[in-house]
Amino acid sequence: MELSKIKSPADFRSLKIDELKDLCDQLRKTFLIKLSNHGGHVGPNLGLVEATVALHYVFDTPKDKIVYDVSHQTYIHKMLTGRIEAFLDPAKYDEVTGYTNPKESEYDLFTIGHTSTAVSLASGLAKGRDLQGEHYNVVALVGDGSLSGGEAFEGLDEGATLDSNFIVIVNDNNMAIAENHGGLYGNLALLRQTDGKAENNYFKTLGYDYIYVGDGNDVVALIEAFRKVKNTDHPVVVHIHTDKGHGYKPAEENKEAFHFSGPFDLESGRPKFEDNSESYDEIFAQEMLAEMKADPKVCVLTAATPGVLGFSPERRKEAGRQFIDVGIAEQEAAAMASGIAAAGGRPCFGVVSSFIQRAYDQLSQDISINGTPVVLNIFYGTVLGMNDVTHLGWFDIALISNIPGWVFLAPTNVEEYLSMQRWAMAQTEYPVAIRIPGGEVRHAEGGVQTDWSDLNKFSIEHKGNEVAIIGAGTFFPLAQQVADLLAKEGIEATVINPRYLSGLDTDMLDSLKKNHRLVITIEDGILDGGFGEKIARYYGTSDMKVANYGLAKKFADRYDYNQLLTANRLTAPQITEDALSLLK
Amino acid sequence: MELSKIKSPADFRSLKIDELKDLCDQLRKTFLIKLSNHGGHVGPNLGLVEATVALHYVFDTPKDKIVYDVSHQTYIHKMLTGRIEAFLDPAKYDEVTGYTNPKESEYDLFTIGHTSTAVSLASGLAKGRDLQGEHYNVVALVGDGSLSGGEAFEGLDEGATLDSNFIVIVNDNNMAIAENHGGLYGNLALLRQTDGKAENNYFKTLGYDYIYVGDGNDVVALIEAFRKVKNTDHPVVVHIHTDKGHGYKPAEENKEAFHFSGPFDLESGRPKFEDNSESYDEIFAQEMLAEMKADPKVCVLTAATPGVLGFSPERRKEAGRQFIDVGIAEQEAAAMASGIAAAGGRPCFGVVSSFIQRAYDQLSQDISINGTPVVLNIFYGTVLGMNDVTHLGWFDIALISNIPGWVFLAPTNVEEYLSMQRWAMAQTEYPVAIRIPGGEVRHAEGGVQTDWSDLNKFSIEHKGNEVAIIGAGTFFPLAQQVADLLAKEGIEATVINPRYLSGLDTDMLDSLKKNHRLVITIEDGILDGGFGEKIARYYGTSDMKVANYGLAKKFADRYDYNQLLTANRLTAPQITEDALSLLK
Repeated sequence: MELSKIKSPADFRSLKIDELKDLCDQLRKTFLIKLSNHGGHVGPNLGLVEATVALHYVFDTPKDKIVYDVSHQTYIHKMLTGRIEAFLDPAKYDEVTGYTNPKESEYDLFTIGHTSTAVSLASGLAKGRDLQGEHYNVVALVGDGSLSGGEAFEGLDEGATLDSNFIVIVNDNNMAIAENHGGLYGNLALLRQTDGKAENNYFKTLGYDYIYVGDGNDVVALIEAFRKVKNTDHPVVVHIHTDKGHGYKPAEENKEAFHFSGPFDLESGRPKFEDNSESYDEIFAQEMLAEMKADPKVCVLTAATPGVLGFSPERRKEAGRQFIDVGIAEQEAAAMASGIAAAGGRPCFGVVSSFIQRAYDQLSQDISINGTPVVLNIFYGTVLGMNDVTHLGWFDIALISNIPGWVFLAPTNVEEYLSMQRWAMAQTEYPVAIRIPGGEVRHAEGGVQTDWSDLNKFSIEHKGNEVAIIGAGTFFPLAQQVADLLAKEGIEATVINPRYLSGLDTDMLDSLKKNHRLVITIEDGILDGGFGEKIARYYGTSDMKVANYGLAKKFADRYDYNQLLTANRLTAPQITEDALSLLK
Repeated sequence: MELSKIKSPADFRSLKIDELKDLCDQLRKTFLIKLSNHGGHVGPNLGLVEATVALHYVFDTPKDKIVYDVSHQTYIHKMLTGRIEAFLDPAKYDEVTGYTNPKESEYDLFTIGHTSTAVSLASGLAKGRDLQGEHYNVVALVGDGSLSGGEAFEGLDEGATLDSNFIVIVNDNNMAIAENHGGLYGNLALLRQTDGKAENNYFKTLGYDYIYVGDGNDVVALIEAFRKVKNTDHPVVVHIHTDKGHGYKPAEENKEAFHFSGPFDLESGRPKFEDNSESYDEIFAQEMLAEMKADPKVCVLTAATPGVLGFSPERRKEAGRQFIDVGIAEQEAAAMASGIAAAGGRPCFGVVSSFIQRAYDQLSQDISINGTPVVLNIFYGTVLGMNDVTHLGWFDIALISNIPGWVFLAPTNVEEYLSMQRWAMAQTEYPVAIRIPGGEVRHAEGGVQTDWSDLNKFSIEHKGNEVAIIGAGTFFPLAQQVADLLAKEGIEATVINPRYLSGLDTDMLDSLKKNHRLVITIEDGILDGGFGEKIARYYGTSDMKVANYGLAKKFADRYDYNQLLTANRLTAPQITEDALSLLK
């Protein structure tokens, strides 16, 4: 059928089963045209074309509820649920997000972007349904990669006790973003090898009924399986073996690179744009490879995002057992790092800002209370990073800097970062977090100190008077820009690089009182619970005026950087304007 | 042998195996004498006497490392590792903490108090050992109740991939604090019933070798099992079936009450002190039972601490399927609540302040980004609550109030609490957290409003001038006390109950500028990232002076309330003194 005619799943449910393969082919083709021009999650969606068609064919959506884990694999789902134009018409490509979004469609149950949440959320839907005596199917679709996350386990464990309809579809493509890690994956492999008949079955141990579909890209087999479990009265797992990147050879052959890809040449699969600019993932990987070679005690941990850390398959091989991918399991990565440090190893855990939220308690209990010298590198902790509402990098300052015991460093350029990284790895006094700067990669103009053990010493980069501007991390250049603009108005501002986010240089703050009336703070994160507020508190009982700049406590989705910065008065002209007004 | 002679495990390793039963009896007897006088975790330790003796008998501690999950079951461990005097001599009872503590002994690897962390921490010890080419046994001992926590799963999953010595002892007494919940427990029951021979075996699915010990209180059987796995070259689980409360009839018969107990009469097992004073657990349970009866959509969730919420076994039975204990699984409780709310149910999740740290990401992603109207009740969120370093209730304001979207309420008395609770359950606009006050239970003097939908409206309880004192939640009475002291000095202070912790009443704050020079904030939590800093930031560019009172960003262990409050200047005379000085 013509794809443009699919306004809802009802429009293709009338098709005969043997017509669905053709529908899948069309969907895949259209999907690839958009993705090759637009970029996005290629492999996860290619592998799930048939399953998505089969789900909407069998289940009575939207009355029946399907919750997709991570939801980066819902492009086909969107094509089938009233949003086909966003895939057919290039002008409308950006009208849908890359994740499920209830604001877009009643077929989307939740806004989801983090992994391992779908089974838990679906267990709640099922419970809510039962409390109200309603009847419909609740389906959670979760990838094998997500199963290593603690929340997925907790959801499976509790979901198994529901005495009613609860269907978990395990989309097993034998990969996370990179290869899977964890003992569980041995069991999934065994289940694939035995056509689901292995003696020990993870899902059965948790209490689930279990069905295995060996070819998860066979739409007919999937329909048969889904029909078997539809309207079940108890929890059941349908384990489907899919092929990540299915139907597009470059994505089948290079699964990791095609998990998420920018625009690519459809024929060759080669990226349309190569970005060879300097980047912190490369800087981190090179530095840590060198440290690992020099010292067998050093190791790098990731929770399933080795690429974020610059650790390509080749580099992972080079690092050998000193590179540890624990799978999607931030809690384990943090706690394991603490154990490694306690045993005398030197662990460095690199993690995306938004994902460290999954390990708050481990940063506090497993690490800080024990004072283990874990090194944490926060990637994408910046307003200039990922802009999906589920991946914002604005919250880590408020999260980490308010846990006692952590030294939280904010380098402003490569040399400062490397100096901090080397000091953090060499010392054994503190857990140290380092926030990789966002925006353009900058270099130091002069020398950089090598010892950071004199904690919370801010650095005056330019001595002035009347107003002092403290620009943390990414926004240190913004502080300099404000100073430049103020200079044009005849005001020579003091410019400060605080370097530390976890404590105040009270001596310096006191000394500023002599010849300053205003302190401006600028940080790359939310104001609430952030760095600037600590300075406002410190000066609260003095005559010093304090103006804090950062982001308002609000979520934003797919924002335009400049618009968001302007809305938060995070531009040099705006801050300068405010400063002049306050100094009047 | 004489217990007082045990200075280290070496002192009893020379005993013959058949002499160990007598040692166990002596340890149990001495333990019970202390606990009946002192209180503590009774049941978990009684069940583990034999296993603890067997562990230290077989393994070469402290070279071999044993990590105890939660570590509330390490009293016997402490008796065997140089700390027997703290159990024999009443004057020294308080010389040991109730958890492992490296400051006490080299036999204690970590300071642990939260559940589900031991396997993860031990996996790190093993990895750190391997990186350095060292050789010793790493043992994690984890209770069945802790296995439902996501971190325990993540640790097991990763630990299984270690290509070296790694021993996990599952201490299965078929209980958490209360009964277990989760599909996994069906598998544990099956393993117990089949003497470990069931077809599906949870631990085997994760890749572990597996040994079962049916009588986990038989020291000889335990020694045999531990000897089998000692110096293993791969990950192995030893599943031991123990009896919570073993050897003390009252504790065997009333396992939930004896999980943790205050002093009790040794003969009858009856508590020595009955506390019949008014308490928020009772108030919460009565209120929510009434709400559940009135509306089948209402439900209460707990993550394995029903007693904290006042839900005794009888009340749980009364609530039926509307009371949901997900087991030790805060991530699931939060996400499931979001799903229930999305399906039209009305969930209320009651949780201990320190444990909500395990669900930060779920509060943000699963709940707030989705705007699901979950109600969260924070228990023990106060400096006046639990004082073990691992259970501090000081951090939830900084944690919750800085996540966008949450309405965070701080009632100051019973009537205000109930009004907020009813409004929160009735509305469907926001996720709402309510912080149960600490300290003495207070009652409202006048009427209380019923509608809290006009967000962030602070309440002026007494109009004055010059100085305004904003006392949040537990510390509202302290604000009143300061006002009383200031009145004696001729200053009539304004006293404000902010009620909301998640936003500011900017109109009121602006209006204070007219006739106030100083605003004092007092909160029951850490200053960093807390409520007061937001007010300091708001007034930062004005002439208003702001003095924030709360706790310094430091951990404290087994602190004396009065000492800690005084050290943080959180007493009425100190705040008054500061205010007078600032107003000069």
